[in-house]
Amino acid sequence: METLEGRQSILAALHARQRRFDVVLVRHDAHAEKVADVVELAGRMNVPVRMVDGKELNALAHGATHGGVLAIVSEKPRTSGEQLLRLIDALPEPPLVLLLEGVDDSRNLGFTLRTADALGAHAVLIKKHLWDFDATEVARPASGAYERLPLVQLDDVSLLVQLQRRGLKLFGCIAVARRTMHDIDMTAASVLAIGGEKRGLSGAVRDICDGFVTIPTRGGASLSMSHAAAILLAEAHRQRLSGAGDSSTSGL
Amino acid sequence: METLEGRQSILAALHARQRRFDVVLVRHDAHAEKVADVVELAGRMNVPVRMVDGKELNALAHGATHGGVLAIVSEKPRTSGEQLLRLIDALPEPPLVLLLEGVDDSRNLGFTLRTADALGAHAVLIKKHLWDFDATEVARPASGAYERLPLVQLDDVSLLVQLQRRGLKLFGCIAVARRTMHDIDMTAASVLAIGGEKRGLSGAVRDICDGFVTIPTRGGASLSMSHAAAILLAEAHRQRLSGAGDSSTSGL
Repeated sequence: METLEGRQSILAALHARQRRFDVVLVRHDAHAEKVADVVELAGRMNVPVRMVDGKELNALAHGATHGGVLAIVSEKPRTSGEQLLRLIDALPEPPLVLLLEGVDDSRNLGFTLRTADALGAHAVLIKKHLWDFDATEVARPASGAYERLPLVQLDDVSLLVQLQRRGLKLFGCIAVARRTMHDIDMTAASVLAIGGEKRGLSGAVRDICDGFVTIPTRGGASLSMSHAAAILLAEAHRQRLSGAGDSSTSGL
Repeated sequence: METLEGRQSILAALHARQRRFDVVLVRHDAHAEKVADVVELAGRMNVPVRMVDGKELNALAHGATHGGVLAIVSEKPRTSGEQLLRLIDALPEPPLVLLLEGVDDSRNLGFTLRTADALGAHAVLIKKHLWDFDATEVARPASGAYERLPLVQLDDVSLLVQLQRRGLKLFGCIAVARRTMHDIDMTAASVLAIGGEKRGLSGAVRDICDGFVTIPTRGGASLSMSHAAAILLAEAHRQRLSGAGDSSTSGL
């Protein structure tokens, strides 16, 4: 079992219908208007709601940002490669997938999921051996995005190859690329791959990339992984909002 | 006195010539090639370099990422409003200034400085009463940007008004703005103002803004302060690289 802490995470998880809810715990003196929508939605979904005192709630919580409401839930099921492919096939719009090859900590991963969700990514792929995070620590900075966004663990590159067969272009973000993110067309079906700060993209992923891009910076200064992901996804979102991308961008 | 930890921060501070260096400490068994440039530059600048054992270094360090080299230095002098105005007047290009009204922690501030420096901001303004961070904690995630980037504490909005008199446009980033960041011209002299996640921009700053912009997100989802700043600055950088911005953008 896991705990979900705070209104935002609990509402997102109730809406996403991915987890089994044991109980929603509400502190006796919690601000009624701040928990009303949680209590109401839980009730409609036949999830038991129990009033508890602050001590009991704090004992169950990891952090201090729960605002008086906490839920005890099953783990969020990981999305399998097959589920991802079905999801991709069913999308009404060109898929936008983020691949993270290096993730330094749970907090940065959580912030990255939040940004990816806000900027229209449909799924996030993470190398399996990198996944040893406490789910609650990832979910908190993700602010609900952890519940909404399909998260897929990659064993090897075979899932990437299957995505490419479906027409997705795999763009590797590396410092030395000749083209910038403004030069490529991310309005088409795309996987955007970002490496860790220390090691960059793996050889296995580089070998199958359809193209490489860089984020232009002053003097080639580097960015943190989560900020690089935000900037790259914001550019994809800009291109998608403006229709078919700039007339100057080119597909591959 | 403060400590600077790691090659990147020390090199950036030596180059920036803002601090007085007491001594550079190098661990006996540090990787020679990783500290060679620090030792060489310190030598040229007449800063004493002393070899120490790992225990002594670790006792002085806040973190574990120093890689065997640490410097004992004076505080970085804060840039005054007058210094900022002189700096702005001397710039060969249209100024780009970031104003942060809400900063939740030292780590996010450090990351934001790193991104601002990489994306061409000339200075960062922070409300004075918000500044109670440990400088070393800010400097570490900033990866050298803390040394390079002028950091100005704002007492009130009078400095902003002085910047406006010099022709800078003050753009407030708020969720409910009608125009997106893609609709305005950030190639001209600009101050980009971002509020904290909880309170947003203050009334005092809103009252004098020349215009408001929003970062388009899926369903109006919110972003963290440091990621919003990164995306906004990347858009300004894109417009500046591409010349006069999109033909569709408009000044005020």
